[in-house]
Amino acid sequence: MTAGAAGAAPGQAPVTVVGLGLMGAALAGAFVTRGHPTTVWNRSPGKDGPLVERGATSAATPAEAFTAAPLAVLCVKDHEAVREILRQAGEALSGRVLVDLTTGTSEDALRTAREAEGFGARYLDGAILATPDAIGLPDTAILYSGPTALFTEHEATLAALGGSPLHLGATEGLASLYDVALLGAMWSSLNGVLHATALVGSEGVGADAFAPFAGMLFQAMGVFVTRYAEQIAAGDFTADDSTVRTHLAGVAHLVRESAVRGVDGTLPGHLRSVLTEVAARGHAEDSYASVVEYFRKPAL
Amino acid sequence: MTAGAAGAAPGQAPVTVVGLGLMGAALAGAFVTRGHPTTVWNRSPGKDGPLVERGATSAATPAEAFTAAPLAVLCVKDHEAVREILRQAGEALSGRVLVDLTTGTSEDALRTAREAEGFGARYLDGAILATPDAIGLPDTAILYSGPTALFTEHEATLAALGGSPLHLGATEGLASLYDVALLGAMWSSLNGVLHATALVGSEGVGADAFAPFAGMLFQAMGVFVTRYAEQIAAGDFTADDSTVRTHLAGVAHLVRESAVRGVDGTLPGHLRSVLTEVAARGHAEDSYASVVEYFRKPAL
Repeated sequence: MTAGAAGAAPGQAPVTVVGLGLMGAALAGAFVTRGHPTTVWNRSPGKDGPLVERGATSAATPAEAFTAAPLAVLCVKDHEAVREILRQAGEALSGRVLVDLTTGTSEDALRTAREAEGFGARYLDGAILATPDAIGLPDTAILYSGPTALFTEHEATLAALGGSPLHLGATEGLASLYDVALLGAMWSSLNGVLHATALVGSEGVGADAFAPFAGMLFQAMGVFVTRYAEQIAAGDFTADDSTVRTHLAGVAHLVRESAVRGVDGTLPGHLRSVLTEVAARGHAEDSYASVVEYFRKPAL
Repeated sequence: MTAGAAGAAPGQAPVTVVGLGLMGAALAGAFVTRGHPTTVWNRSPGKDGPLVERGATSAATPAEAFTAAPLAVLCVKDHEAVREILRQAGEALSGRVLVDLTTGTSEDALRTAREAEGFGARYLDGAILATPDAIGLPDTAILYSGPTALFTEHEATLAALGGSPLHLGATEGLASLYDVALLGAMWSSLNGVLHATALVGSEGVGADAFAPFAGMLFQAMGVFVTRYAEQIAAGDFTADDSTVRTHLAGVAHLVRESAVRGVDGTLPGHLRSVLTEVAARGHAEDSYASVVEYFRKPAL
């Protein structure tokens, strides 16, 4: 198959994209849109059609894919799958740059980095803080970690995927660590809102009627987060709003309200057990920021 | 003690504030600032000094306080304390309007409402979505519930406390219900961020360096909340971004990352157990919004 001249613009660096799930296909599409000669490969066949129509080249094997361009972006199911693909490609990886946007833990990223280096490749890890429909947009943030010079060298190319590429540091695990941490904060926040939605719903309040109030809460959260981050960074948990003791009294209302209405009690129960332990450790008169101490050194 | 003419302006309705903790003192101060002839009472003495200096009148007993003005705002420790004060005032409550901003459950509010009515008073319940330093500001939201006509009658006076008074409905418990629900969402969100801060902190990332990323998350949360509220209102959990199955795979990374780094595993464990149950109930291919079903009908 000839390189699709339709999408390729002179001067744009050739790239390879490995993995054509929803996210991988969006990444390849963003490269094609920007005029990068783009080669694609997916483990199971039949995913490359729309991209080839737009000018991408389909590779038959991982080795062929990695040989087609000096830089390859990988986005597959998990790091196990990444390492399996690297082993299939073998010496075709020598001298190549791999940008691995596959989701995983920081340990996964470090392990894949060392394996890639063993094949003579250079490695950046990355994490996409966006859904596939936001790939290629100017405000889309993608986090990267790995050798600084390697990031700088390819930053302009990577900007095709999201206009705000951010380099976190040389340790390859950082991007995945931030990603996992932020996802945890997201799930915890979503559970809080959905629990609240269930509570007011038990009184007949619709989720759509309640949503603006939750929206107000998240606007206010930015202020709390900044204030508490300063306290944590300074190691000074002096309460300038409510104390842990006051919050604990409030949590008791949440526990009771949930029980009376037959709404889940495990989430309120977890909030209460965390705050009870934080108070017991001497933080009763401190600010809510002191809860970080519990998460850092959990009860055994 | 004579009524303090210093702060009183002709035409402003006289008011009473019962409870002079941090929040009660801020409420009384906001009335004084707007020129309302303001009478104050607190269970323990010595809290009224700064307000009396600014022109407020100090009452010696609850009965004296409620007799001084047709409308009284209450903000004390809990609803037990409110009802104790009502019993002390007795027949002095007849014909008065009570606006109870004391924190509690919706059941607390209903019980206090019925007791107030027993004394011949009319009752509004309220909840303050702000810290004491925001009392009296134009954007400060205070939620009210109780008879609509009663709210409308006193809305202009109550606007002195926060420029955005919102009436939620005639059932007195609504304001407390929203308040407790929103606080639960807040604690859950804060725990998510503080857990994330502990995770990245284990790699040496400072809380202040991480805060902007958490800020980005909360900006994005508004979009999720609106989208999921529409799905819940429509009873249609079709995934237009990630499925519960995909989130569950991600939560496994959070569980592992936390374990490897010695960071608290109870929060990730709770996220996983909720999602596992949601998937088991047939929502594996649905959107995260389907988690509301679990909170509505928790496992026994």
